[in-house]
Amino acid sequence: MARTIVVIGSGAAGMTAASTARRTDPQARIALVTEDEHIAYSPCVIPWVLEGRTTWDDIVMHDPEYYRRERDIDVRTLTKVTSVDLDSGVLVAGEEKIGFDSLILATGGNVFIPPIPGKDLKGVHVVRTVNDGKAIEAGLQGVEDVAIIGAGVIGLEMALAMVELDKEVTVVEMMDQVVPRILDSDLASQLRTYLEQKGVRFIMGSPIKSVNGDTAVESVTVGDESFPCGMVIFSTGVRANLELPNQMGLEIGSLGGVRVSPSMQPYRRGRLVPNVYICGDVVQCESAVVAGPTMSQLGSSAVRQGRVAGMNAGGGSSTHEGVASPWVSVIGDLQVAGTGISSGLASYYGMDVVTGTGTGHTRARYYPGGSPMTVKVIAEKSSGRLLGAQMIAGEDVTGRINWLSAAIIEKVSVWDFISRYENAYCPPTSMVRDVAFSAMEDLASKI
Amino acid sequence: MARTIVVIGSGAAGMTAASTARRTDPQARIALVTEDEHIAYSPCVIPWVLEGRTTWDDIVMHDPEYYRRERDIDVRTLTKVTSVDLDSGVLVAGEEKIGFDSLILATGGNVFIPPIPGKDLKGVHVVRTVNDGKAIEAGLQGVEDVAIIGAGVIGLEMALAMVELDKEVTVVEMMDQVVPRILDSDLASQLRTYLEQKGVRFIMGSPIKSVNGDTAVESVTVGDESFPCGMVIFSTGVRANLELPNQMGLEIGSLGGVRVSPSMQPYRRGRLVPNVYICGDVVQCESAVVAGPTMSQLGSSAVRQGRVAGMNAGGGSSTHEGVASPWVSVIGDLQVAGTGISSGLASYYGMDVVTGTGTGHTRARYYPGGSPMTVKVIAEKSSGRLLGAQMIAGEDVTGRINWLSAAIIEKVSVWDFISRYENAYCPPTSMVRDVAFSAMEDLASKI
Repeated sequence: MARTIVVIGSGAAGMTAASTARRTDPQARIALVTEDEHIAYSPCVIPWVLEGRTTWDDIVMHDPEYYRRERDIDVRTLTKVTSVDLDSGVLVAGEEKIGFDSLILATGGNVFIPPIPGKDLKGVHVVRTVNDGKAIEAGLQGVEDVAIIGAGVIGLEMALAMVELDKEVTVVEMMDQVVPRILDSDLASQLRTYLEQKGVRFIMGSPIKSVNGDTAVESVTVGDESFPCGMVIFSTGVRANLELPNQMGLEIGSLGGVRVSPSMQPYRRGRLVPNVYICGDVVQCESAVVAGPTMSQLGSSAVRQGRVAGMNAGGGSSTHEGVASPWVSVIGDLQVAGTGISSGLASYYGMDVVTGTGTGHTRARYYPGGSPMTVKVIAEKSSGRLLGAQMIAGEDVTGRINWLSAAIIEKVSVWDFISRYENAYCPPTSMVRDVAFSAMEDLASKI
Repeated sequence: MARTIVVIGSGAAGMTAASTARRTDPQARIALVTEDEHIAYSPCVIPWVLEGRTTWDDIVMHDPEYYRRERDIDVRTLTKVTSVDLDSGVLVAGEEKIGFDSLILATGGNVFIPPIPGKDLKGVHVVRTVNDGKAIEAGLQGVEDVAIIGAGVIGLEMALAMVELDKEVTVVEMMDQVVPRILDSDLASQLRTYLEQKGVRFIMGSPIKSVNGDTAVESVTVGDESFPCGMVIFSTGVRANLELPNQMGLEIGSLGGVRVSPSMQPYRRGRLVPNVYICGDVVQCESAVVAGPTMSQLGSSAVRQGRVAGMNAGGGSSTHEGVASPWVSVIGDLQVAGTGISSGLASYYGMDVVTGTGTGHTRARYYPGGSPMTVKVIAEKSSGRLLGAQMIAGEDVTGRINWLSAAIIEKVSVWDFISRYENAYCPPTSMVRDVAFSAMEDLASKI
């Protein structure tokens, strides 16, 4: 008899898991249940839709009917799963009970909003779904000042989008640098300077105290300062959505995500849960860089995990390996990217590291249209093993960060990189020796 | 006493070797002798100077005086080394005898011109030095039709430069595809179609028979066809310049370059030659992809080899590892790149391979400004080990080919790549799952 697979969640993890399960088991009955109204879109693009570079219609690539017709996947939107009974294999979705043989949990995460006064006022927003984006768009009318709470990559992308829309923008960050945790302070300061030149104001090193207003946002208080604003956007990081995992009794890891095996199965009372798979922002997976867990929480990681979950749920066999979590963000004319761990995170792990920095260009120096490029690399002092890399340039950082990410997951040392790795060269696309090598040589000279 | 290091050749290999030797041994006396008039430039940029995107002055980054002043390197241009006596450690450069403790040979290569009638007529050119480029520029006045002999990357870059200068361009290629040997025929055909749309005419599968004219080029004969042209540019591949190596009795490898050890030392009568190092287009090095030798002959490879030669000549210690030779070429709006071996070369080696192709975009599909991207990957059928990768897109191929090159030198299989490798994602710079993965999955599905 055909197996029934139910997927909960329609983000990158859930959609990928459902499609992969279908490819793996053409006979299965597959249903996907989601609270979201829209499916098959990338929430990462919301800042650019707001800027007007593309449209809400364009970014939603498929509707439920497409999945029903093309992939025989029964997609139910605007439907909340309120309980899952693992023993009987039945879940409650809206008013309906659905039986399942295999279950894929891709319930994602929620933006963490600190419990401060005024957090529920009209004009307070998050950036998570198309509808969040549309609400911001609608709410912006007549608003002149926008406060962005949290200077992570989404916060900074939103800050720049607001600048492009001629708003006065203040970014509030509790830590003393932008993109804390994943970017080193020197590159962070380069990025912040750029945003300041674009007109963004920063209040650093202070948490937000309150959002003030009668029924709608009128001002924000940070430390001793209050400043007026008509909209507040929280981009304060994503926490795993543990409502269902907790109800199901799944084990939660030390970083706040659901613990998973390499097969993407969760644990309950110390044992793998049979026929249940979990993927995306809700999970805590293994790091490829340090021994131990990490929260990857990237769209690309969700797809990678969704593939493994979907393949296993469909009766195939696949494992999820440790991650370096390469990421890239585009902030105006700058592209910033990173992989592995930052100096700060290494210090958190008690690791003694050495860093190297290289500066150069994305193209040959004399070739028009290129931009300056800074590459920073981080290695373990005792072994020279590469642990992390970061870069800022005007173009072409994505492939380069994937490249350095490969070196990190292959556990090569800085000397190994210098002697074995190669770069392609053409004056309009690179220097004859890529800037990555300058960074590696700078690092090697310090060990 | 300070050692004397003499470098012969001022290409990327020679200049890098001299500078690295200086960094390694601050006390050494270092001289560099070259037949070229200009030093410290990239011949790869010549097509774009001719197009007018940059200038001859801009591409020559330093003059001999700079090297004398900044690096204490005595550069002698327009000087030919006519003989080297290894036993006494003396060479003849122009009229002068120079003694050396260590010698670095970076004599490069010459464009191979087939021994056909008319090859020495006025209007016949090669693309190798700044002066070659200036001669083309001067010779183009009044010329309407240009024949490019050889459809390798330099030939195609030159063809497009000539189109940009409103010339009628015919490319003559002996093989039946453009970029033979290093590009697979399907990607080659995509590239050729693009150039045809730009107005380039191709005569494929026929070698050039003669260049015709009285004192200057008037026409070219290929097979049974003769067509008028005012200039002929040979881009028929580079042969190692073996004049000095032969005079010195160095061993020549099966591919026509000088055999080298990992320390970049040549052999004579079966033994390593002490205190002599050789680097750049003149050498035959080891492949990282197949067991055996390869001719890398890339600017980036010359720099990599020059570093090893210079470090060792300066009393340091470094080795040159096998190469995958990633390359990239920009041809109008297209960027084409490759690494490792092509299907054709694998077949030459008697290897049974499987290929996979992925198509997608350089950015999220809906994000403006991106371009289609094709990625092809080649793996050994028995093991799934990646042997080569190629790609064509409108942007951002350089970092991506470095990334795939890393996977190839790490000898990962296609399954390994799919389960362990990751890509960074941001809608303006990539798809959520990079096209490389589609190619890998296509390949995996065929094994």
